[in-house]
Amino acid sequence: MDFGFDATTLDFQHRLLAFMDEFVHPAEPVFEEQQAARPGAWGPPPIVADLQVKARERGLWNLFLPGARGAGLTNLQYAPLAEITGRSPSLAPAALNCAAPDTGNMEVLSQFGTPEQQAKWLDPLLESTIRSGFAMTEPDVASSDATNIETSIVRDGDDYVINGRKWYISGAMDPRCAILIVMGKTDPTAARHQQQSQVLVPTDTPGVTIRRGMHVMGYDDADHGGHAEIDFVDARVPVSNRIGEEGSGFAIAQARLGPGRIHHCMRLIGMAERAIELMCRRVTSRVAFGRPLADQGVIGEWIADSRVKVEQLRLLVLKTAWLMDTVGNQGAHTEIQSIKIAAPETTCWIIDKAMQAHGAAGVSQDTPLAQLWAAARTIRLADGPDEVHRRSLARRELKKYQ
Amino acid sequence: MDFGFDATTLDFQHRLLAFMDEFVHPAEPVFEEQQAARPGAWGPPPIVADLQVKARERGLWNLFLPGARGAGLTNLQYAPLAEITGRSPSLAPAALNCAAPDTGNMEVLSQFGTPEQQAKWLDPLLESTIRSGFAMTEPDVASSDATNIETSIVRDGDDYVINGRKWYISGAMDPRCAILIVMGKTDPTAARHQQQSQVLVPTDTPGVTIRRGMHVMGYDDADHGGHAEIDFVDARVPVSNRIGEEGSGFAIAQARLGPGRIHHCMRLIGMAERAIELMCRRVTSRVAFGRPLADQGVIGEWIADSRVKVEQLRLLVLKTAWLMDTVGNQGAHTEIQSIKIAAPETTCWIIDKAMQAHGAAGVSQDTPLAQLWAAARTIRLADGPDEVHRRSLARRELKKYQ
Amino acid sequence: MDFGFDATTLDFQHRLLAFMDEFVHPAEPVFEEQQAARPGAWGPPPIVADLQVKARERGLWNLFLPGARGAGLTNLQYAPLAEITGRSPSLAPAALNCAAPDTGNMEVLSQFGTPEQQAKWLDPLLESTIRSGFAMTEPDVASSDATNIETSIVRDGDDYVINGRKWYISGAMDPRCAILIVMGKTDPTAARHQQQSQVLVPTDTPGVTIRRGMHVMGYDDADHGGHAEIDFVDARVPVSNRIGEEGSGFAIAQARLGPGRIHHCMRLIGMAERAIELMCRRVTSRVAFGRPLADQGVIGEWIADSRVKVEQLRLLVLKTAWLMDTVGNQGAHTEIQSIKIAAPETTCWIIDKAMQAHGAAGVSQDTPLAQLWAAARTIRLADGPDEVHRRSLARRELKKYQ
Amino acid sequence: MDFGFDATTLDFQHRLLAFMDEFVHPAEPVFEEQQAARPGAWGPPPIVADLQVKARERGLWNLFLPGARGAGLTNLQYAPLAEITGRSPSLAPAALNCAAPDTGNMEVLSQFGTPEQQAKWLDPLLESTIRSGFAMTEPDVASSDATNIETSIVRDGDDYVINGRKWYISGAMDPRCAILIVMGKTDPTAARHQQQSQVLVPTDTPGVTIRRGMHVMGYDDADHGGHAEIDFVDARVPVSNRIGEEGSGFAIAQARLGPGRIHHCMRLIGMAERAIELMCRRVTSRVAFGRPLADQGVIGEWIADSRVKVEQLRLLVLKTAWLMDTVGNQGAHTEIQSIKIAAPETTCWIIDKAMQAHGAAGVSQDTPLAQLWAAARTIRLADGPDEVHRRSLARRELKKYQ
Repeated sequence: MDFGFDATTLDFQHRLLAFMDEFVHPAEPVFEEQQAARPGAWGPPPIVADLQVKARERGLWNLFLPGARGAGLTNLQYAPLAEITGRSPSLAPAALNCAAPDTGNMEVLSQFGTPEQQAKWLDPLLESTIRSGFAMTEPDVASSDATNIETSIVRDGDDYVINGRKWYISGAMDPRCAILIVMGKTDPTAARHQQQSQVLVPTDTPGVTIRRGMHVMGYDDADHGGHAEIDFVDARVPVSNRIGEEGSGFAIAQARLGPGRIHHCMRLIGMAERAIELMCRRVTSRVAFGRPLADQGVIGEWIADSRVKVEQLRLLVLKTAWLMDTVGNQGAHTEIQSIKIAAPETTCWIIDKAMQAHGAAGVSQDTPLAQLWAAARTIRLADGPDEVHRRSLARRELKKYQ
Repeated sequence: MDFGFDATTLDFQHRLLAFMDEFVHPAEPVFEEQQAARPGAWGPPPIVADLQVKARERGLWNLFLPGARGAGLTNLQYAPLAEITGRSPSLAPAALNCAAPDTGNMEVLSQFGTPEQQAKWLDPLLESTIRSGFAMTEPDVASSDATNIETSIVRDGDDYVINGRKWYISGAMDPRCAILIVMGKTDPTAARHQQQSQVLVPTDTPGVTIRRGMHVMGYDDADHGGHAEIDFVDARVPVSNRIGEEGSGFAIAQARLGPGRIHHCMRLIGMAERAIELMCRRVTSRVAFGRPLADQGVIGEWIADSRVKVEQLRLLVLKTAWLMDTVGNQGAHTEIQSIKIAAPETTCWIIDKAMQAHGAAGVSQDTPLAQLWAAARTIRLADGPDEVHRRSLARRELKKYQ
Repeated sequence: MDFGFDATTLDFQHRLLAFMDEFVHPAEPVFEEQQAARPGAWGPPPIVADLQVKARERGLWNLFLPGARGAGLTNLQYAPLAEITGRSPSLAPAALNCAAPDTGNMEVLSQFGTPEQQAKWLDPLLESTIRSGFAMTEPDVASSDATNIETSIVRDGDDYVINGRKWYISGAMDPRCAILIVMGKTDPTAARHQQQSQVLVPTDTPGVTIRRGMHVMGYDDADHGGHAEIDFVDARVPVSNRIGEEGSGFAIAQARLGPGRIHHCMRLIGMAERAIELMCRRVTSRVAFGRPLADQGVIGEWIADSRVKVEQLRLLVLKTAWLMDTVGNQGAHTEIQSIKIAAPETTCWIIDKAMQAHGAAGVSQDTPLAQLWAAARTIRLADGPDEVHRRSLARRELKKYQ
Repeated sequence: MDFGFDATTLDFQHRLLAFMDEFVHPAEPVFEEQQAARPGAWGPPPIVADLQVKARERGLWNLFLPGARGAGLTNLQYAPLAEITGRSPSLAPAALNCAAPDTGNMEVLSQFGTPEQQAKWLDPLLESTIRSGFAMTEPDVASSDATNIETSIVRDGDDYVINGRKWYISGAMDPRCAILIVMGKTDPTAARHQQQSQVLVPTDTPGVTIRRGMHVMGYDDADHGGHAEIDFVDARVPVSNRIGEEGSGFAIAQARLGPGRIHHCMRLIGMAERAIELMCRRVTSRVAFGRPLADQGVIGEWIADSRVKVEQLRLLVLKTAWLMDTVGNQGAHTEIQSIKIAAPETTCWIIDKAMQAHGAAGVSQDTPLAQLWAAARTIRLADGPDEVHRRSLARRELKKYQ
């Protein structure tokens, strides 16, 4: 057992932290100004493309992707880098071409795509010349239970015909979003986990209507391409657009799940660390009743508990990454669920304390805290509400004694 | 001891509930449409004025105001009516001309204003032909400690000259907002609570600049006139615009505090009840894993705890109203602080559970829950963060044993 | 709506508080000494009988019992008196002959007993010359669901023959405990709530074996007669020992439930108030790191939250008592469940904070806090665990929308 | 970074788990019987000595002690073994001669003792022929701040004369407790952390009076030698009984702190795991309302949260052990405080849920849960209340930004 990072990780951490200090954090006010100047625009403001150039120059590009196409890092090596990007979540992941859902889509295409699919969609995604969406969640059913999915993908000759409604399809409001991976049912009569398939659907396919951007707690996340509600009405794509075998949709979704969780959870930890830093800076500089807030009341407890909570959480996420690297997604099943349960809740708790320590500024647009909280809160619902994961984990725990 | 409402209250409850069912709730989707069609507009959409006509016809107007100018209700009689309006907080309080901060401003003008001030500002406020703001909070100091206030109000001949910056001045982004009650220091050398005065400052006074609308958790509350940041640079008003004596600003602020707390807290209870209703409707209609959510896991505990919490909270707020009516604000001091501590926290807890029970819809614009949560969360900071009130209350409790 | 106590209540409060100050609190150290000197003894030490004499002299006797046999108080009038006795729960309830389970047994005998049963058992209980137990809970089944009860009461000629095991039968280790009210099934084939009957079983009945005293968190509550595990093996009593009709056992149990809840919950509030007082005294007198604890860290928040929580809780219990007086147990069903959920949890929270503020002394025998906590914690399980009540309450709430 | 245990650890885990299954768990009911048969006795019942014989035979002896005198394990290697012993905390640590406070005393004597001190006290402790106490905590001061300690150790010729009162001196009620390490002030005028010294005081020294056993939540922990209150009145020992230099008492106390924390926290984790197991077994076997508890309500959430919490906690404690091994106590300062904050609170939470899932049995003497809870709760106060550690940790966190 060894809790130290390896040399590769330390080197990347060093370079990425330098990049954050030199480019990303200074770009934050620029980002805010550019966003304020383009109301109603979807997709990133110009500063993001500038940062992407800098990141590529420094070899900080596609770090999330294992293998030759990416940086070749293990989950355990990439995890602490994802944390660092979480400190500036509107800028850093996009700057490094490491932002969801493109990351998961690139992983899927890299692992399951045909050479043709890869040439057409993976290559431009790796270059960040297009963006992509993952269309799984549906408004009308509890789609955390994949067997509930109602979108139909019906074979018609050499085509698939797609009908259904999806929502919270992140990134899809961005006009550069060229391609969607759509999860639907090709065979509702098959075994529970063989009913689903995933197909590639270009956003300009007739019958695909991007209706509106869904909100998360008052934010539309426009810079990130929002969260689209999308109608599919007799949308038709060639059969060659299917990813993997027919009926493999559930398995492919499971495969993308593990790494995605690590990325999300480590970014949440970065967000929590940012909140702790902001809280500490605030309470040492702000005076009330004649003394800095730091010397008063419950503030010390908040800071200590934040530190204690985040340290435990980070270790669990890193262990999960290590398990994925050593025994695979399946062997890390309990831990992958555990971090989904623990990370957003812990992060929300910490950010909420930081908001409270800021007074009115804490809920305002003058600190990133309110938006960080909204993002963390939303992850308690993404991939299914926490409660679904708690019950599944409990069932596995109970089986030990049955 | 008697826990039943009196006949006047029951009559008003009956009429107000009918008004809600007949007019307010049906107007909610209209409100959403009208708002969606006027991005960037500040102030209420047309439906609010329509509702105001209906409310006046039914004698549901200025219910908050005791005495002959208003409905003549006691705090205890008005409190349960405020709760009902909280079920539709964007519409009902405005429809009845019972929305903050106009209510508090009308109370102050009614109680402390000169006949001239009343004719000029109170009368149109009672008619809802203008709106008003209360400019107390400052960005640069912990203004929950009123002695920290930095805005200066300097006598210059027959004028006062005002300099300072305020923010989170609710309603002031509304173009109809004609008048601000500004809290500042007329004598920084006086005793701690005699330094402050309140003056009436028309929004069109030279030197008054309304800079921007502050956000709360991603919402700008545009329909309600937002939350303005305002600069005062050598803004000049006649001395006759002072409310009450010079140095009475703190005392006047205290006087408005009690009723305002009751209103806010009862509306929060209405918001909590709305959230409970939405949660119950959702979990009985939504099916996952083959059964309604209501039959699964922790949902029953959420609903039960919500009911138990909100019942306790309501009784405490009602008792506080009763104390204010019987022994006055001073005698109800502990309770007025208690409800400030309890109400937003309890309400946030309940709304958060309702959000979670809704899945992604819970944080979306398709239910009122996310915005209700944001509003309740913000009240944990309004009038000073909870922690300030906890410490003050604790000091009073400790004194019993010293 | 009126939150003031009536004159009768105020008079009794006044007299009872004087009795507490003059006799009960000074008796607490005597009680501790007497208990320490009689290890292994079950039942109250001599000081309790002394206090009973004083209480009777002052008309503070059987206050819990409505009607001519008792003090004739309503639930709402007795409730605040029960709170006061909770401040010294080992002494005050016993001193006033207002201790469970004798109170519930006296209520049942008073309401449902025959004149013979009353003469034989109720009269000596009212005089406190004997004690009694209520044998309902069983170790082997979830007896919070009364239909699970396995103890059988079988008619055999003019007798009932009883077989079963009960535990946590409070008071039954006291050698003065002469009579048990035993809940069992007379007809397991009847409708769900008509299977049970209650019969009077003298403790000296052959076949009744009092096996041992059950513990609660390390305490045996010996002074209070402990919590017995009792075996019934062919224990035979005449049919005339049945209370009410055959099959009425469930209904009689429900009838005793309401008042018992009020008593328990108000005593819990008294315990919480005692804990708050001890916490306040401790933190103002104890110095660490150069300042009284009261001036440090989170202590103020604990005290404020304790006050805010206990005020809300008290109002809910009082309202429940008022409902029972005005619309009956059935109409107060939701509230009777609500206080079962809220009272022990809130009280545990408060006592736990008081323990923590005391350092090691908080868990020691030198303050009453640890034992108060154990008592409050146990009530989260008595009459069925909280969760049973939460689910039942939730079902009723959900029905409003189905 | 590597989350796998090394071969030595795996081997010891394997052997220790076999020992638990073969000897310790079967001995638990024997222990209960022996304890029940000897009320008033202090010190372990005979079964413990039997287990010690078995443990020595299997090389499971003094595992806690690094170096040649012990098993030579690192902190990281011993930590998971301490966890295993925590599953049966009344038996396993004592069986392996790994029970506090003897462990800490042996470490101190091993590291700082003279050869004479070691021959006289360390050797018999390593053989478990005597026991020992560590007399630091005082009833009258907040002794978590060592500078508050009032016990005086005054040089008088070749002797030290000791005066003061200590309490919660664990193990000292055991008649085999032969020696105390007493912390007191040799020079109250010295620098803050040089005032204290530690001296060896045989329990039969004239002037040493062991007054009584202190309770923890109703338990006297008699089998473990209880928690003594001890008076020192002119107790005289030779100067050669001093451990280390005069004035080094604080430093020696700090040195023992780190390993002791690891041991305590890992045992707490073992206790939590025992509680989870008991909870799972209970809810799968117990039926209420027609279904096993496991299928109902909030139980799944409790189990999942217990698993998620304990996994995070274990990783933090193991990392702390690793830091102590690699960068020393000083470098692990934040983590040593963090685990003191996190471990007892998390463990209490888990055990409380397990108690609740057991109904009345959960607070009874028929499961170990109530006593486990009491032990875990007490550790929130041992070595100073959590709040002291939170504030110290917060100060260190804040310093990063000042």
